[in-house]
Amino acid sequence: MAGKFSFQLDATDGAARAGVIETPRGQIRTPAFMPVGTAATVKAMMPESVAQTGADILLGNTYHLMLRPGAERIDRLGGLHRFMNWDRPILTDSGGFQVMSLAGLRKLTEQGVTFKSHIDGSSHELTPERSMEIQRLLGSDIVMCFDECPALPADRDRIAASMRLSMRWAQRSRDAFGDRPGHALFGIQQGGLERELREESAEALTRIGFDGYAVGGLAVGEGQEAMFGCLDHAPAMLPVDRPRYLMGVGKPDDIVGAVERGIDMMDCVLPSRSGRTGQVFTRHGVLNIKNARHQDDPRPLDEACACPACRNYSRAYLHHVFRSQEIISSMLLTWHNLHYYQDIMAGMRDAIAAGSFAQWRAAFDAGRAQGDIEPL
Amino acid sequence: MAGKFSFQLDATDGAARAGVIETPRGQIRTPAFMPVGTAATVKAMMPESVAQTGADILLGNTYHLMLRPGAERIDRLGGLHRFMNWDRPILTDSGGFQVMSLAGLRKLTEQGVTFKSHIDGSSHELTPERSMEIQRLLGSDIVMCFDECPALPADRDRIAASMRLSMRWAQRSRDAFGDRPGHALFGIQQGGLERELREESAEALTRIGFDGYAVGGLAVGEGQEAMFGCLDHAPAMLPVDRPRYLMGVGKPDDIVGAVERGIDMMDCVLPSRSGRTGQVFTRHGVLNIKNARHQDDPRPLDEACACPACRNYSRAYLHHVFRSQEIISSMLLTWHNLHYYQDIMAGMRDAIAAGSFAQWRAAFDAGRAQGDIEPL
Ligand SMILES: [Zn+2]
Ligand SMILES: [Zn+2]
Repeated sequence: MAGKFSFQLDATDGAARAGVIETPRGQIRTPAFMPVGTAATVKAMMPESVAQTGADILLGNTYHLMLRPGAERIDRLGGLHRFMNWDRPILTDSGGFQVMSLAGLRKLTEQGVTFKSHIDGSSHELTPERSMEIQRLLGSDIVMCFDECPALPADRDRIAASMRLSMRWAQRSRDAFGDRPGHALFGIQQGGLERELREESAEALTRIGFDGYAVGGLAVGEGQEAMFGCLDHAPAMLPVDRPRYLMGVGKPDDIVGAVERGIDMMDCVLPSRSGRTGQVFTRHGVLNIKNARHQDDPRPLDEACACPACRNYSRAYLHHVFRSQEIISSMLLTWHNLHYYQDIMAGMRDAIAAGSFAQWRAAFDAGRAQGDIEPL
Repeated sequence: MAGKFSFQLDATDGAARAGVIETPRGQIRTPAFMPVGTAATVKAMMPESVAQTGADILLGNTYHLMLRPGAERIDRLGGLHRFMNWDRPILTDSGGFQVMSLAGLRKLTEQGVTFKSHIDGSSHELTPERSMEIQRLLGSDIVMCFDECPALPADRDRIAASMRLSMRWAQRSRDAFGDRPGHALFGIQQGGLERELREESAEALTRIGFDGYAVGGLAVGEGQEAMFGCLDHAPAMLPVDRPRYLMGVGKPDDIVGAVERGIDMMDCVLPSRSGRTGQVFTRHGVLNIKNARHQDDPRPLDEACACPACRNYSRAYLHHVFRSQEIISSMLLTWHNLHYYQDIMAGMRDAIAAGSFAQWRAAFDAGRAQGDIEPL
């Protein structure tokens, strides 16, 4: 993979930023939303359909892939891109967060984490060095530092100790990653909701030096107000000329609020997971397709949406296939939700470039305030 | 829907026939395999993907659709084609067979069948007249007569009585169907494995007069040898200038054997259902993707297959997503199986046209005898 990794900031509007990340596998337009392809698939979607929604980059989960099918196996098979038939950029997380949320019998030491697989109970170890190795074997374009993230609320000492461990692991991740042209390593800021700890973390990371910086440790139960409170100051602590990534966010208004506060990249399972449970995001808020009000409704989910679910199918059909537990329900609703998320991102990019983010934001809020279309 | 329904026989090779059914919604090349779209979806497939496999026509199930979402509802929503986003021809069964196999508390009289829904226990009645009405409301292009089909084995008297009831219902179906230019009504031959009863049924149907004729009452547990024994004489009893449809068949070698004996159309859930259970049909027979032998295999299911599953994915990937119970496993394996079935049909059509069906058949058998490729 020739070429290099770079970030160009093209426009700002308040704290909001628009730009482009160049990678050997193609451009990532920012602000960017990354669909989650946990187990080498964005659930219920063909990868070419994911690309059609406007996604420039996917997220893959190191924890899931190391357990099944295994990083060495994916490497032997030509890497994750080839394995899952996605030739655009892939960002992989470090595995740390999901070890803490999914694995059994975890043991945390300075060295790393040992744990048992939630799939078959087998024992595994993740360290900064092993996480870098796995992400290299997968062929990840954007590699995340291995870190530790306490659930909130937690007391300040716990948060501080965890953050400092993560900063030592960030240095070990940087050392283990080495020099890999065309591939990027992102540091992860920690520190919970404590501004001073966020400052300390940002300084430690900047001293080490990364290709991009994540705001970690949010979207872990603290609520939107607390998250936005942190995002009011945390992104600005990070180097202005590097992409800023908010991990695991979020609902449409979380995403808009994060971009408004200077975030360039996000990922979340919400649009795809909601697609499988019948929850649909539109310009007018959220609707649940299983509601009987849709059973005779010939109208699309959103008449302004250009996705196949909206162009070709009625709410009545989507209601029917959801109630009948047909796979096409997950396929179409996931497609719509991912398409809508990418529409939001495209709208914000254009608005930032035009210096009209505030107007775009007002229209976004007005559409949601209006609520879903009236029943017929 | 302007235009009319017609059948043109273009070539024969032994008993095998190749031709074209013209309908206002497009041509159906015969011999034709019809994927099954039970509940207004071919499970795990987008309809445009089904078309890409080469399918000219789908089958819809009257029984399922009348119960959910309901025929009147589909009619109000513009008909089944629009509802499910499939603009090519649709054949609907009469509902009779599935009432007998799925519904609870059935009661059969001269008038018709009353039964309870397997979904919610609600009571329903199907008669020849109601079946015609439902199929009209759905907008079906090829409508099947309402018939009764006993499970085999059954004694001769039972089979004869059932066949004669079905012939009376065939006349009532014909009367109720009326004159609907561009739409076809097919009669269904019954009589089990009894040649004389098949003759009697064929004569009764021919006297009434239909746009096509199905060989019914097979693929109900009698085994391939008995089915082929019946097909050695049953199709020839039916008018040569009308399409002949074998209902609910079958495995690849069933299909080939049926075409060899003069069948023009078939349908079966097997390729789509097998796709969801990991059973894959290829030129070399059957393989099960969950088998551990595939977990490190970088090769496609079938290197000669042009479907997306074979062009873009390894057996190792398909094994991984099947084991991980990812929806894309059902999507890709169903796509492959349906594509392979259509490849068989296209191969047979070309061979019949070229007068080389015997050679094609020999190559088909040789490929299967060879078995799946050796493990690496
Ligand atoms: Zn849509
Ligand atoms: Zn294939």
